[in-house]
Order: sequence, then C-alpha cells, then structure tokens
Amino acid sequence: MASIGNPKPSPFIPAFFALFLLLSCPAIPAAARTRRVRSLKPCEELAFFFHDIIYDGTNAKNATSAIVAAPAGGDKIKLDGLNHFGDLAVFDDPITLDNNLHSKPVGRAQGFYFYDKKEIFTAWLGFSFVFNSTEHRGSINFAGADPLMNKTRDISVIGGTGDFFMARGVATLTTDAFEGEVYFRLRVDIKLYECW
Amino acid sequence: MASIGNPKPSPFIPAFFALFLLLSCPAIPAAARTRRVRSLKPCEELAFFFHDIIYDGTNAKNATSAIVAAPAGGDKIKLDGLNHFGDLAVFDDPITLDNNLHSKPVGRAQGFYFYDKKEIFTAWLGFSFVFNSTEHRGSINFAGADPLMNKTRDISVIGGTGDFFMARGVATLTTDAFEGEVYFRLRVDIKLYECW
Amino acid sequence: MASIGNPKPSPFIPAFFALFLLLSCPAIPAAARTRRVRSLKPCEELAFFFHDIIYDGTNAKNATSAIVAAPAGGDKIKLDGLNHFGDLAVFDDPITLDNNLHSKPVGRAQGFYFYDKKEIFTAWLGFSFVFNSTEHRGSINFAGADPLMNKTRDISVIGGTGDFFMARGVATLTTDAFEGEVYFRLRVDIKLYECW
Repeated sequence: MASIGNPKPSPFIPAFFALFLLLSCPAIPAAARTRRVRSLKPCEELAFFFHDIIYDGTNAKNATSAIVAAPAGGDKIKLDGLNHFGDLAVFDDPITLDNNLHSKPVGRAQGFYFYDKKEIFTAWLGFSFVFNSTEHRGSINFAGADPLMNKTRDISVIGGTGDFFMARGVATLTTDAFEGEVYFRLRVDIKLYECW
Repeated sequence: MASIGNPKPSPFIPAFFALFLLLSCPAIPAAARTRRVRSLKPCEELAFFFHDIIYDGTNAKNATSAIVAAPAGGDKIKLDGLNHFGDLAVFDDPITLDNNLHSKPVGRAQGFYFYDKKEIFTAWLGFSFVFNSTEHRGSINFAGADPLMNKTRDISVIGGTGDFFMARGVATLTTDAFEGEVYFRLRVDIKLYECW
Repeated sequence: MASIGNPKPSPFIPAFFALFLLLSCPAIPAAARTRRVRSLKPCEELAFFFHDIIYDGTNAKNATSAIVAAPAGGDKIKLDGLNHFGDLAVFDDPITLDNNLHSKPVGRAQGFYFYDKKEIFTAWLGFSFVFNSTEHRGSINFAGADPLMNKTRDISVIGGTGDFFMARGVATLTTDAFEGEVYFRLRVDIKLYECW
C-alpha cells in the first residue's frame, strides 16, 4: 500500500502504526472486507431485451404468455377494456442480447404481470431472469410498478442467485416495440449496486 | 467536521493523525463512506393511508380494486366463503396523508393481494407505493404476509426507486377502518433501515 | 465532537492510541458496528419442509392450496395440459421440521405459485414463512423462479420481520416427495447472509 515514510520522530512509531492498521476497525466483521463491492456506482451493468407474445386464441404455438385472470366478465382471450384493468398474465419470454425476436435466447424471463389502473395503462411485474448459458448461470429477481406509458420506468432488483448471488439494484424498463396487443418487447437496463 | 486542535506535542503529530484518518479503514470501499446511513435505527420514517374499494358489481366508477381470480366456483363479484380463500384482487388505491378517503392523494398503491387461509382471514400482498409529487418521486416496493386479524402486522420493504432508491425496511400495517366487504383503509408505517 | 487536545509527546501516547480506536473510522456510522453480521458465510441456516395439498374437487377439507387462475379453457379443478402453463395456485401449507406431513407444524407457508412454461414444468413462487411459536416469531419472505425438474433450485430471501428482521439470503428448494398432482412436499434450506 501507500508508503507512510515518517522521518523518524522516535523509533516506536512504525510498530505503533502497524498496530493501528490491524486494530483500527475492530467492530467491522472481517468478512465485510472481502465483499466485492457496495457502492453508489453500479458494481455490475447488464442490458437485455425480452419478448412477450400474448396468447390470443389463435397463436398457441408461438405465444409466450397467457392471460390467466381477469375481472368478472373478462374472457382471458383478449385484454379487457378499462385499460385491461385486472388482467393478469403469466409469461415465459425469451431474453435476447439485441432487439431481434429471432436472436438466440440467452435466458428466459419468467413471471407475471397485471394491468392495475382503469384510467391509463399501468402494470405491476414480478419476474425472474433465468440464465443457464456459458456466459451467465443463475437468476435475477425483479418486482415493481411499471407505469408503461412513461418512456422509462424503474423497478427493483430484489435478489439473485448463482452468478447474481444476493444481487440488489434497479432495472430500467423501456418499451422497445409493440404490435397491437399481442407482441411487445422490453429493453431492461440492469444496474446492480450490491454484488457479492 | 470537528476541529482537531492540537497544542503541538511535536510537529509530526497532526500529519500523522490525518494519515490515520485516511488509511485506518483500508478495506472498506470508499463508496461505503458516502452512503447516507445503514443503521439499527430507521434512516427514514413515513406514514400513509391507503384506501381500497372493491368492485362489487355495482360500483364500477368508484371501485379501486377488482377480484380477478378465485377458486373453482367463485364468481369474482363477491368475496367467497371460507374466509375468501383464494380470492385474488388487483388494486390501484389512492394514498393519503390522513385517514380521509377524500383527501388529496399523494400517490397510488398499486399491486395485488389474495386471501390465503380457509380458517381465518389472512392475506398476502405484493405492491408498490408510486409517488409523483413535489414531495416524493419514485416508488417503494413491498411484499409479505398480512395476517389481517392482528392489530398490526409487518411486511418487508423489498426495494425502491427514485427518492427511495435501494430502500429496504419494514412496514407495519394497521387496518384503520373497513365497511362491510367493500371498503377498507390501511395505515402503513414505513421504517427504512437502508437508505442510499 | 470529542476534544482531541493532546499535550506533550511522551506520556500522551497510550491515551492517544485509545482515542484512535474510538475515532479511527469516523465515517462508518456507529450503528453499523453493532449489526450482528454481514458475511460471505451464512449468518443463519435453517431447514424446513412444507406440504402442499392441491384442491382437486374432492378434498376440500384437507386441501391446503387451490388453483385460482388458469388460461382460457382451464377449469381450476385439475392442473391443465401444456405442463400446467398458466395455472396459478394460492396456498397455506403447514411447515414441519421433518418430512412427515403429520408432524406438529412450526409455522405456515403462505403465498402463491404458478406454472409458467409450456414445454416443461417450471414455476414461479412468491410466499412467506410465517412463524408464531416459542422457537421463532416473525416471517421470512421469498421470491423467485422454480425450475422444478431440477434436483435443487435457488430462490431469493427478499426480506423478513420479527426474528428475521431485515433478513436477506438464498433458499434452496428440493422436491422431497410428490403424489400424483395433488400432494407435494418441498424441503427448503435457507441461508441468510444478512442478519440484523
């Protein structure tokens, strides 16, 4: 480390100094010193796209999500009126590194979302990115509100496993594209602020 | 900071001391020193009310939540027997600073809950407080069990964004009032123990 | 703050040293020093079993969970085809210390899961362990993907209350047993890496 050359004020000083280095933070557990980082700058940044194809009664083969709950009167085939308020969908969407639905998936986005406002489109999401490739192994877990008419919206990274063990952070969602009410593509910019 | 007035014991001491201040915790990353606080006392305390008006087939205009899933046989208009076991509702409830439903909302509580016990009323909640006012901008994300017959129950603050970036803590729920099975009001006392 | 006035070089050294012990980490909040532990080794390890008996139209008395949502066409009595894709169940399952369904429960596992892949069985879970016994009081909250054909899978401990105040960690799930599509038993090995 830095040299602390001190023009000999008296001989005891160097030993004295070494003692301080050892003892000066006695109550911080040793393990805390070995954690990779905990910072105000992200300790890891990742960007992905995922692709949601909602089952509409005709696309069973290609669909990656399905409406499984809806308010009284909803038919679960098409998203309901009132800005889809109450429609809840379960998904298993491919994750890609670029915005091409047909790129080789690097993982799956698995979870659920529901529309939760009558006046405009807003949603709430709980899902995981599940990776099992040479590049990434493990999962990242997300939860939060998605006011999807906003250009970007932030949700929480609430945990992770494997390569993302104990991760915490914030993910910024952007709607990258959509086609009617059947396909949409989200860009997810993940910034982790706790990495172990 | 504190003045370190030093009645010259010998000239090297002040420099020596300054060096220790810089070097005495060499393994704690610099960024950790700038985090606002991480403590056993809350670093931030907030209290809000939110108001849930369940759709009952007649109140479409005023309702802020709707049952969207129920066990086989449930009709999603009224909460089912067996202590509503299995009824899942999606909500977009106004948040107020006091217990008056008609006070100006300071944000929205958006998420879902479901009743999950046959013998008594208990629920499980996943939701966000979404703020977009001069006072607060951002979101707080919550999850946890709500044994709602208890006077108070604790759930987890699992993350936050914006003003509540990376927040973690505990929120204490109290049922402040209810009217039949259509309206209830929760008081939420939030204590954050991780603030960035 | 503390006065650090320090007269004359020789006899002051021991006092000086003691002062450094107190003051040498001025930017680490005092409270941080009293946290129990934050480590790369678990600060707490727990193992439990929980038992899920799915309502199948005939077992209302014994069932601990019920399908409450399903894609269009699903009947919520039996798990649907396509690997149950989209079936969402709510549960209130007994937690036991051993693998015997009839052992005295030490708590309840309350939450929801849904099947989320058409090609194989995978699920996603959000739930709490709720304890109210002499041994444990409080809750542990979990979320994450459960690729249940794998022998073990990791989900996140996203928070806790009471005895598990502010807990974070990883839980490893193992399917310990199952009977048809009505009963399954999960072993949960919890490792907490943040304890307060």
